[in-house]
Amino acid sequence: MSAGERIAEPPLLEPGATLVPAAETSHRLEALQAQLAARGLDAALLMQNADLYYYSGTVQRSFLYVPAEGEATLFVRRLAARARLESPLERLVELDDLRDLPAEVATLYARSPARLGLELDVLPVTEFRRLERLFPEAEMHDVGRDIVGLRAVKSAWELERLRASAAITAGVYECVPGILREGLTEAQFAGLVEAEARRLGHEGVIRMRGFNQEMFYGQLLTGVSGSAGSFLDTPLAGTGLSAAVAQGVSFRRIGRGEPVVFDFVAVREGYITDFTRIFSLGELPAELRRAYDAALRIEAAVVAAARPGVTCRTLYDIACAGAADEGLAEGFMGYGEARVRFIGHGLGLELDELPVIAANDVELEQGMVFALEPKFVLPGVGAVGIENTWAVGDDGVTALTTAPEEVQELG
Amino acid sequence: MSAGERIAEPPLLEPGATLVPAAETSHRLEALQAQLAARGLDAALLMQNADLYYYSGTVQRSFLYVPAEGEATLFVRRLAARARLESPLERLVELDDLRDLPAEVATLYARSPARLGLELDVLPVTEFRRLERLFPEAEMHDVGRDIVGLRAVKSAWELERLRASAAITAGVYECVPGILREGLTEAQFAGLVEAEARRLGHEGVIRMRGFNQEMFYGQLLTGVSGSAGSFLDTPLAGTGLSAAVAQGVSFRRIGRGEPVVFDFVAVREGYITDFTRIFSLGELPAELRRAYDAALRIEAAVVAAARPGVTCRTLYDIACAGAADEGLAEGFMGYGEARVRFIGHGLGLELDELPVIAANDVELEQGMVFALEPKFVLPGVGAVGIENTWAVGDDGVTALTTAPEEVQELG
Repeated sequence: MSAGERIAEPPLLEPGATLVPAAETSHRLEALQAQLAARGLDAALLMQNADLYYYSGTVQRSFLYVPAEGEATLFVRRLAARARLESPLERLVELDDLRDLPAEVATLYARSPARLGLELDVLPVTEFRRLERLFPEAEMHDVGRDIVGLRAVKSAWELERLRASAAITAGVYECVPGILREGLTEAQFAGLVEAEARRLGHEGVIRMRGFNQEMFYGQLLTGVSGSAGSFLDTPLAGTGLSAAVAQGVSFRRIGRGEPVVFDFVAVREGYITDFTRIFSLGELPAELRRAYDAALRIEAAVVAAARPGVTCRTLYDIACAGAADEGLAEGFMGYGEARVRFIGHGLGLELDELPVIAANDVELEQGMVFALEPKFVLPGVGAVGIENTWAVGDDGVTALTTAPEEVQELG
Repeated sequence: MSAGERIAEPPLLEPGATLVPAAETSHRLEALQAQLAARGLDAALLMQNADLYYYSGTVQRSFLYVPAEGEATLFVRRLAARARLESPLERLVELDDLRDLPAEVATLYARSPARLGLELDVLPVTEFRRLERLFPEAEMHDVGRDIVGLRAVKSAWELERLRASAAITAGVYECVPGILREGLTEAQFAGLVEAEARRLGHEGVIRMRGFNQEMFYGQLLTGVSGSAGSFLDTPLAGTGLSAAVAQGVSFRRIGRGEPVVFDFVAVREGYITDFTRIFSLGELPAELRRAYDAALRIEAAVVAAARPGVTCRTLYDIACAGAADEGLAEGFMGYGEARVRFIGHGLGLELDELPVIAANDVELEQGMVFALEPKFVLPGVGAVGIENTWAVGDDGVTALTTAPEEVQELG
């Protein structure tokens, strides 16, 4: 090996990974620019990881400056070499000192922004004040909500990524019969399932936009304790291993004849899918099986109605009416204080995207993707439910998560 | 089973978990109140998960109102039943509607705060503006940095929790020889190690305070690609499985005679510890072994100097001088653009706490806990380094992470 070879740079990209193509970022930036123009904003300055990835193809520490008209510029703080490889954007400027940003913007765009859009829904106040000091002439406006709205409709390229993410859910579903056995703690079971997910390419960190929202692979919950609610916007949360996390698996040992609520979140190339299936060792109690069948009927009724133009409220009402018809309204989507007021949520680069399938007037649009999760808590008995991730097509919805829906009674 | 038994609530606490005792929250709240009084603030209103857990023992969705004098109140949005079990605080008020908060505060404290402390370092602007509208008379001030400062010094009770967290690092260290083998992908290897960590009680989510900072179990990196830097404030980051995450393991297959950088972060009952060890299948190349020995000498030199009253700058300078003496200054703490300007970081409920062991004048205090991580990148060869989590005692520092430090050459 010669000295020349020795100083080769380490590889900065996983060779098998799909980079965000220029056609995607162009299309997305155009839609954002149209929104900026419509709102009379001169530009947006974006910095949050999910948004950066969406608009620039990289999460390297950067500011993405998007003028209402003209070419966007990625100002990179760390690491520029990597951002150049990851991003399809042509205009990339290394920014050694944040204080240079206003001058760089003024030079490149021949003016400073008078009305500037920022991600105020996620930007911490101290970061915001730093930007205010850098652009003292600019009036700051939120564009976080615009972006969340724009990101709700997925492109064909994104749907491919979501299918790859959903393939992980199919893979972990298949591994469960080989792993689940009596006496495993929930934590042990989760670890073994997660190991399989990692092998299949699960990326780990599940991004959530909401302040204080946290998620780790979903919730693998069993027995009565599976019906515990918590701070999270989710019908079932579990006790977790301590009050410090207050969600997810416990050290409870999995027994026979009880529900194993397998609520799993996959992430692949940034894209998140979410599904829930029910397993049990031996026979699931009849009462839970009945509730599960009700959840399947509710899912079918909502899915039959879901298509572009239908409001979230319509779908939510169908589900709530279904639960009432089944005589199970009380435990639908959690019990008592822990009940949540939605039956599904959008997802993509973040787990908590639009649309929220709840009592709101947002209409489904082709390209939207949402998880639908009718679930029941039977106090003192346990919890059951079904969840799939659905893509809205031109005349209905298609499941991205494809594991069989019947209860799996094992060994 | 009678109907009466059937409507029992699900358990809301993991039976084996340690709740935060009242003596802890009292002591911590007193220290915060002293700080509020010193700054002339009437009260603080806290809502971020790590801070909530520290001051109230729960992460249930809440606002913790801490007056400069008098008793704190936890206003709980979701779930109050659970917050009551988890928190040792006596004053807990259910808050159905956020808009009731100002009136509740005025009633309980006989006045509204004129100068109110908020966690402005983490609070998103839209959340902040909502609080501004609720308390239009109040002048808002940042207390996030005060809290970060106060949380840097750990109590004896917290050190016990940190030792339990460190026990997970010892456990995963021991499982590596049974898992590591040629041809596993980094992702597979990580999954198997993480499964063992979960079995031992690893809680998953690793909290970080910095905006956009993300971490998943640390970085298990191998070979030349282990030396790739990224957006994170870390000397080694790895490629990750795609540009969407841009850190951590890849699909690279682990080979013989290359460094396996085992940088692992444990979380137990909310408390985080961090360590790094080096493994290899067969012999580690001499050049890397030499660099690793240099890292051990640098660690020893820094540790010998670390005690209350010593500044972070002194420790940082010792490390940098050590790297220069070893003729390895160029690759110390990363190479080129990816180099970071610190050799360690505080940790506890978050991975990025104070003190930052860098060129600053913060003095070590008894009870501080930090990870010290001298690491080298040899471009084109690979990366090595050592990391332990240290607690500052009255006359020196003690390692919480206790796995043997020598390179483990396996099979």
